[in-house]
Amino acid sequence: MVRIGLDVLGGDFAPEVTMGSLALLAPELRENEKIVLFGDREKIEAYLLQNPQFTLFTEVVHAPEVIGMGEKPIKAFQAKPNSSIVKGFKYLKKAKIDAIASAGNSGAMMVGAVHVINTIPGVIRPASVVMIPKISGGFSVLLDVGTNPDAKHDVLFQYGLLGSIFASSVLNIENPKVGLLSIGEEEKKGNLLVQSTFQLMKEASNYNFIGNVEGRDLFNDKTDVVVCDGFTGNIVIKQIQAMYRIMEKRGLLDDYFSRFNYELQGGSPIIGINGNVVLGHGISSALAIKNMVLLARNLALSKLNQKINDAVQDFPL
Amino acid sequence: MVRIGLDVLGGDFAPEVTMGSLALLAPELRENEKIVLFGDREKIEAYLLQNPQFTLFTEVVHAPEVIGMGEKPIKAFQAKPNSSIVKGFKYLKKAKIDAIASAGNSGAMMVGAVHVINTIPGVIRPASVVMIPKISGGFSVLLDVGTNPDAKHDVLFQYGLLGSIFASSVLNIENPKVGLLSIGEEEKKGNLLVQSTFQLMKEASNYNFIGNVEGRDLFNDKTDVVVCDGFTGNIVIKQIQAMYRIMEKRGLLDDYFSRFNYELQGGSPIIGINGNVVLGHGISSALAIKNMVLLARNLALSKLNQKINDAVQDFPL
Repeated sequence: MVRIGLDVLGGDFAPEVTMGSLALLAPELRENEKIVLFGDREKIEAYLLQNPQFTLFTEVVHAPEVIGMGEKPIKAFQAKPNSSIVKGFKYLKKAKIDAIASAGNSGAMMVGAVHVINTIPGVIRPASVVMIPKISGGFSVLLDVGTNPDAKHDVLFQYGLLGSIFASSVLNIENPKVGLLSIGEEEKKGNLLVQSTFQLMKEASNYNFIGNVEGRDLFNDKTDVVVCDGFTGNIVIKQIQAMYRIMEKRGLLDDYFSRFNYELQGGSPIIGINGNVVLGHGISSALAIKNMVLLARNLALSKLNQKINDAVQDFPL
Repeated sequence: MVRIGLDVLGGDFAPEVTMGSLALLAPELRENEKIVLFGDREKIEAYLLQNPQFTLFTEVVHAPEVIGMGEKPIKAFQAKPNSSIVKGFKYLKKAKIDAIASAGNSGAMMVGAVHVINTIPGVIRPASVVMIPKISGGFSVLLDVGTNPDAKHDVLFQYGLLGSIFASSVLNIENPKVGLLSIGEEEKKGNLLVQSTFQLMKEASNYNFIGNVEGRDLFNDKTDVVVCDGFTGNIVIKQIQAMYRIMEKRGLLDDYFSRFNYELQGGSPIIGINGNVVLGHGISSALAIKNMVLLARNLALSKLNQKINDAVQDFPL
């Protein structure tokens, strides 16, 4: 049995779109997969009464409080023990669910990830991950995209390992190529952080470091994983999204660029922690929520965390 | 009289495209504007004999040596006093020309900019600038795009002033809005560098700081100038170029995205130094060379350096 927790109250259009995603999820779920709905029991059950076919693959946990988008994460986490996010993390911690997905307050999700679920022993810092569509099909893995804006070189070095394990276990890429995002291919190019990270990575024995890469290599086949600090990664992903949105408005999306629609990916996994956590966008549609839940399901099935745990124990820093 | 120096030997397709650009420049130049050609006199004069109409607006300086794209900048600068780049900078230093433009070895150009021309007194570090097309027309100014990958907060603070003066004097924008590139609009968002820069910028009395901006704001009207360190700026500009090239290949360019063609801008000015210097791309076409030269001309006419000098003296750090 795989149980995926969904924060029914998370997102700008909750609970309508989160509940609405059930219709999209129904045909995608396998027999032994359940969605555990964290929200107001009365409202959820009223909805399920109208849509009894969804009761087959759902469970309800009463969590009526909402952590709003503007609330301070740590404070809200303490003040609202009955919120959907806090209850979700408690269930994840106790292994009553296998993953949690939310389009709610991302700061509160990070508090849950780091302070309730905890970092895997040996992992210096968790990372958030985004998959970028490649022209040839498939995806490249970009990390970190915002969890750790001031990463040091030992953190980036380990992100190479985390990204490599993500690419192999979630995207089924064999011996993934790992590149370091810089402003030139040569060893000496980049800022001081990248230069010193390069010196560590070129000695990496537990992943396949191929050297510096540039922004264009996110889209081609030069590399499978692109490592950078969370500030740079966040800038990069927002830049891509901004250009995507302009293209969309101007009617310029073709079969390749259509794949950049965030709704198709649904969210960003937080990796390097003892649980499967996916953050969605606040503006998530029902389609985005559906894909966020499926991404959480795939994370749970991939045994990513166990593999990261094993790898970190094998190669302590 | 305005004299613009052109490095005839600079660029992957030199000297054919650099000389070929003269045909494109001819109709664009005003009566009192001349192109000073740095290269092999014999070859240039042979070309001019075939195209005598160009002699009206050209002068020739014999500089037969080439600093190759792969050469180490400082070493090459010392070893090749008769190279087109070194001679060009000597002429610029002596005010025999008003600007220099080259699509050659960018490291050697930086050596010339910093060590021959020198930083304007009071300017901490020069910056390289790129103009990004806005959807509504016009451009936003992005700096630094690579000159200074490890900029500190005092440098970024001053880049706000440099960018503001560039926007007003080269792009004729009145009281330009200056934004700091970050990963969220709130004051506390960003890495430590951006957070500490924000604290300086919000007290800026000599330019119009509007707060943090995100990647999308390069394309809209929220700001006129976007400040970042040279690592981030270089990543951003290459990301934009990479997406532009994919769009071009896939036939997706419309009237807006067509404006991202680097050939239309021609190059990046280095600002904060005592002279007008424009770096072109190695792969420059004749069209790109033409626009690089015209950009150098516009810099010279804008009196940018004098204005930066005045502003820095008025508001010493």
